[in-house]
Amino acid sequence: MPERLGPPRRTPLFQRLAIIGFGLIGSSIARAAKRLSLAGSVVAVDCEEAVLQRARALGVADEATADLVVAVRGADLVILCVPVGAYAAVTQAMAGALAPGAIVSDVGSVKGAVIAQVQPYLPQGVHFVPAHPVAGTEHSGPDAGFATLFHNRWCILTPPDGADGQAVDKLREFWAAMGSNVEIMSAQHHDLVLAITSHVPHLIAYNIVGTAADLEEVTQSEVIKFSAGGFRDFTRIAASDPTMWRDVFLNNKEAVLEMLGRFNEDLASLQRAIRWGDGEALFNLFTRTRAIRRGIISLGQETPEPDFGRRREE
Amino acid sequence: MPERLGPPRRTPLFQRLAIIGFGLIGSSIARAAKRLSLAGSVVAVDCEEAVLQRARALGVADEATADLVVAVRGADLVILCVPVGAYAAVTQAMAGALAPGAIVSDVGSVKGAVIAQVQPYLPQGVHFVPAHPVAGTEHSGPDAGFATLFHNRWCILTPPDGADGQAVDKLREFWAAMGSNVEIMSAQHHDLVLAITSHVPHLIAYNIVGTAADLEEVTQSEVIKFSAGGFRDFTRIAASDPTMWRDVFLNNKEAVLEMLGRFNEDLASLQRAIRWGDGEALFNLFTRTRAIRRGIISLGQETPEPDFGRRREE
Repeated sequence: MPERLGPPRRTPLFQRLAIIGFGLIGSSIARAAKRLSLAGSVVAVDCEEAVLQRARALGVADEATADLVVAVRGADLVILCVPVGAYAAVTQAMAGALAPGAIVSDVGSVKGAVIAQVQPYLPQGVHFVPAHPVAGTEHSGPDAGFATLFHNRWCILTPPDGADGQAVDKLREFWAAMGSNVEIMSAQHHDLVLAITSHVPHLIAYNIVGTAADLEEVTQSEVIKFSAGGFRDFTRIAASDPTMWRDVFLNNKEAVLEMLGRFNEDLASLQRAIRWGDGEALFNLFTRTRAIRRGIISLGQETPEPDFGRRREE
Repeated sequence: MPERLGPPRRTPLFQRLAIIGFGLIGSSIARAAKRLSLAGSVVAVDCEEAVLQRARALGVADEATADLVVAVRGADLVILCVPVGAYAAVTQAMAGALAPGAIVSDVGSVKGAVIAQVQPYLPQGVHFVPAHPVAGTEHSGPDAGFATLFHNRWCILTPPDGADGQAVDKLREFWAAMGSNVEIMSAQHHDLVLAITSHVPHLIAYNIVGTAADLEEVTQSEVIKFSAGGFRDFTRIAASDPTMWRDVFLNNKEAVLEMLGRFNEDLASLQRAIRWGDGEALFNLFTRTRAIRRGIISLGQETPEPDFGRRREE
């Protein structure tokens, strides 16, 4: 699935874009914004000096600083790209320097908790429009970013009640320009949808990789060698950023526990079918699940190539 | 990961190779055997006329027939590539026609139950060497096969006690010629290793796709749209052949239930960590699991490209 971005804009959408946290997502936004001329200037903010050095070396931001206040001063769009556990502290630290009329947004994978943590600290006249681009890879850091990461992916906006309509529209235009399909829903519904399409899948992937690592009867080298039987697919997700994912689970507790409860019920029923040799129950489920993948492929959210296109024959 | 096979052999390893069941795996063996001249002639057997027609049209077998007895007569290598639930019936049907000295093998994902189902029906002088190539894709049928499917993958042989050493060596040579790394272990150990590296991963993938399909609060269209958050990875495995996988679970019950028990224990502990906000427990597991993926990549069993190399930027 090669991806292509459109031509650069003649006039930028924003004058000054401050990206707080310059990892995979932050640096991908910077790359796309630069390439498409979405912002007059792009400022990279990170608390790690090594990350700032990479931002400078990669040339994907116009400024790179550890100083939040300097970064957001005069910015008309500020996007939080740090783990969601750091939102409250970051917002408190920058709140006093935010310009009236500025839009504050984010890219966090949970939305209800984020709104609760950010909104109380924002001054009047600053527009808060939470966002979640459903995109990423298992790699982390500024070098892992790329400009087409959001292309043909969904970006969900969850504006709180009373959000400024113009601010929402402008943020929608920003994400659409990067190639995303933008959808608006409530934070509560977002957290439920993502619990099943993202959070629980990550949890069970982390879990099975942990279970396999702890076995005594099967060595780690055997797990690695024979991983092509299915296991290795799970290791990709279980290689995702630990801090980010810890914060996701701590901040979407209710929805994750609810979805996990359903997953567990269903798994108990499969376990019972295996124990009692109920082949029909197994066959029926295994047939039903094929249709979902066909839907994902036909919507352009997945490659139709076998094995994710991993191997190409010479 | 482009794959390349070696040059064809000057003299074939086997005179007549009968492949019983001509789906993804059977047709891949036929393609590799033809291309590498591993057998004087390759006979495709299938109970479905449509499959035999495809085998003929693809030109990947010298003969294609629904008649087991005709197919195995004179064959010095017979490989069962049907779902393991059909092994006993197939073996009974062909047993009388097997040539003395012939090797009977298979490609099943379970081994203990397979030995119990096949061995009693084999005549004296026929050598049974069970095999399991740890390779495949989510696609099924003769058209899905390709000659390099087994290249750089492991193939596990589980010869029963008293198996003929020469027969084992010859089968090892056959798989090695197709590019596989061959390993020998007991059927019991195989079933335990594969329960964690393949069977339980398939079960939980099928399970979460089923859970997602059944939700009332989240629509199927939302699950499909926002699947790039992790869920879609699971749908690949959950698109695997339903009959094959039903039979795997029915025939590796003990090991699957044992590994599933451990998976459930570990998941309960993660669930508890989420409920009680134990970020440290989550972070520790999420950090530990990254190492396993690095091992799989460094052993050449996985692509190092982000996202399985799914998307390539133009």
